[in-house]
Amino acid sequence: MISRGVKAPELVVASWLNTNQPLQLEKLRGRVVVLHAFQMLCPGCVTHGLPQAATIHELYRRDEVQVIGLHSVFEHHHVMTFDALKVFVHEYRLQFPIAMDMPSDSGPIPVMMKKLNLQGTPSLVLIDKDGVIRYTHLGSVSDMQVGNMIGQLLV
Amino acid sequence: MISRGVKAPELVVASWLNTNQPLQLEKLRGRVVVLHAFQMLCPGCVTHGLPQAATIHELYRRDEVQVIGLHSVFEHHHVMTFDALKVFVHEYRLQFPIAMDMPSDSGPIPVMMKKLNLQGTPSLVLIDKDGVIRYTHLGSVSDMQVGNMIGQLLV
Amino acid sequence: MISRGVKAPELVVASWLNTNQPLQLEKLRGRVVVLHAFQMLCPGCVTHGLPQAATIHELYRRDEVQVIGLHSVFEHHHVMTFDALKVFVHEYRLQFPIAMDMPSDSGPIPVMMKKLNLQGTPSLVLIDKDGVIRYTHLGSVSDMQVGNMIGQLLV
Amino acid sequence: MISRGVKAPELVVASWLNTNQPLQLEKLRGRVVVLHAFQMLCPGCVTHGLPQAATIHELYRRDEVQVIGLHSVFEHHHVMTFDALKVFVHEYRLQFPIAMDMPSDSGPIPVMMKKLNLQGTPSLVLIDKDGVIRYTHLGSVSDMQVGNMIGQLLV
Repeated sequence: MISRGVKAPELVVASWLNTNQPLQLEKLRGRVVVLHAFQMLCPGCVTHGLPQAATIHELYRRDEVQVIGLHSVFEHHHVMTFDALKVFVHEYRLQFPIAMDMPSDSGPIPVMMKKLNLQGTPSLVLIDKDGVIRYTHLGSVSDMQVGNMIGQLLV
Repeated sequence: MISRGVKAPELVVASWLNTNQPLQLEKLRGRVVVLHAFQMLCPGCVTHGLPQAATIHELYRRDEVQVIGLHSVFEHHHVMTFDALKVFVHEYRLQFPIAMDMPSDSGPIPVMMKKLNLQGTPSLVLIDKDGVIRYTHLGSVSDMQVGNMIGQLLV
Repeated sequence: MISRGVKAPELVVASWLNTNQPLQLEKLRGRVVVLHAFQMLCPGCVTHGLPQAATIHELYRRDEVQVIGLHSVFEHHHVMTFDALKVFVHEYRLQFPIAMDMPSDSGPIPVMMKKLNLQGTPSLVLIDKDGVIRYTHLGSVSDMQVGNMIGQLLV
Repeated sequence: MISRGVKAPELVVASWLNTNQPLQLEKLRGRVVVLHAFQMLCPGCVTHGLPQAATIHELYRRDEVQVIGLHSVFEHHHVMTFDALKVFVHEYRLQFPIAMDMPSDSGPIPVMMKKLNLQGTPSLVLIDKDGVIRYTHLGSVSDMQVGNMIGQLLV
């Protein structure tokens, strides 16, 4: 499951929800970071990924695990705008910090999605206390597996 | 559960998806009509109401039961546009006819929502073979109850 | 789904739980009877069939629909005894009348299971207001389908 | 969640299923042991605890995590016999080793249940690689929490 990866690239995003100031991975050393990349009109994200991210957000202490939602729109950009995301986050009562990925100059794939080499949504990225990527997965992962990996990274 | 109601007002909508020509209740006499009023960013609609409507659409013969989705936007109009609905319906692979409720001149509540006297979304409206409203409900209804009512109206 | 069947054979069972006096189909004319044949150690019965029977029992008025559990043991008779059934029914808090099928002299298949020509458990049998079998099914049926059939038989 | 406990008492049981030879905690040093205490007629065990134990059994390598079912009957002893357990385990297709707790001379509570100080079923006991009890819980625990604790004990 978890394995040695590269250092996670610093977050470069367009805007934030659910946080007073932008989050920086640099300042989250010492915590496990659970990055959930999603699109608001992606069924797998809405029915499985985001509820799982919310469960993680509720289960752990803030100084142990930081959940971050990353709205990485790579299709249908005209309707999955930041305005639409705001309504979505409000209606679904999501509480954890959510970033709007930065649009790219060179194509539909936004900046962080490209930097993290994500292949679609939902994608789960686990970053350890030292800022190193230890797991990246496209699609759904069971709660038990996610819990197991976070548990290992917490020790 | 089901009870005697008034005759259902004819559909007055802005546009349609999943059908070559607009549906008219007038022409659906002889079939039970299951009208599911929703908003694409309403969690209860997405997780319960629309999957139930899809299940009804799959279970019954077309000449017995006609499922109709009614996108009745009464809030956040700027992001729940027809363009956004098209993407939503495509991504969630909804197969039954879906109408965009007609914006009202006089306020946020769209025309059919007002005519049907709906109080929010999700709302379920069951119309019998004679075009009479027999059941209107805001919120979720169990599959067994819905099946039971449709079964009674089919006889 | 439902179709014309034969008249249901009268209940011939060894004993009853959850009822002061034995039920007879003869005396249930005017009601739809939902007969759920199960074994207490059959996983499909425990996880799907019995909860569905309990839901039906709660949903309908007693003078409309009568749910009857039928414990038809055709294997492992030494451990699925009436004593064990009593504990099972108590622990699972089943509220509707449950009959212990009558052991057969001539083999492992009990009397009512043979009379009803059931092929295993869970089996669902729907009997209309006139005492006629309208549906028999081995395995699970969706809540919507069951509701639909009961609704049709109620009219 | 997990905390320092006492050394787990060695297993003293009446008989085993799903293993050729009796398991001893002594010989499982180096593995995390997940002990699931249940009764075959306990609804919470059947619908939640045992499926979770089966999921753990499937997820982890055998040399990392050892799942053990412990059938600790403290009520209705006359119907939850070893013969009945054998049928139950067969019908529910449980694959992990399952022990029949040892009846006590002095009352209804069996030996291991008393030694482990369990208050009922389902109970989950997590034992670390050194044979120390790190978690004991009566009732259900979410998959994410269980995964998280096992993950921490694995490191």
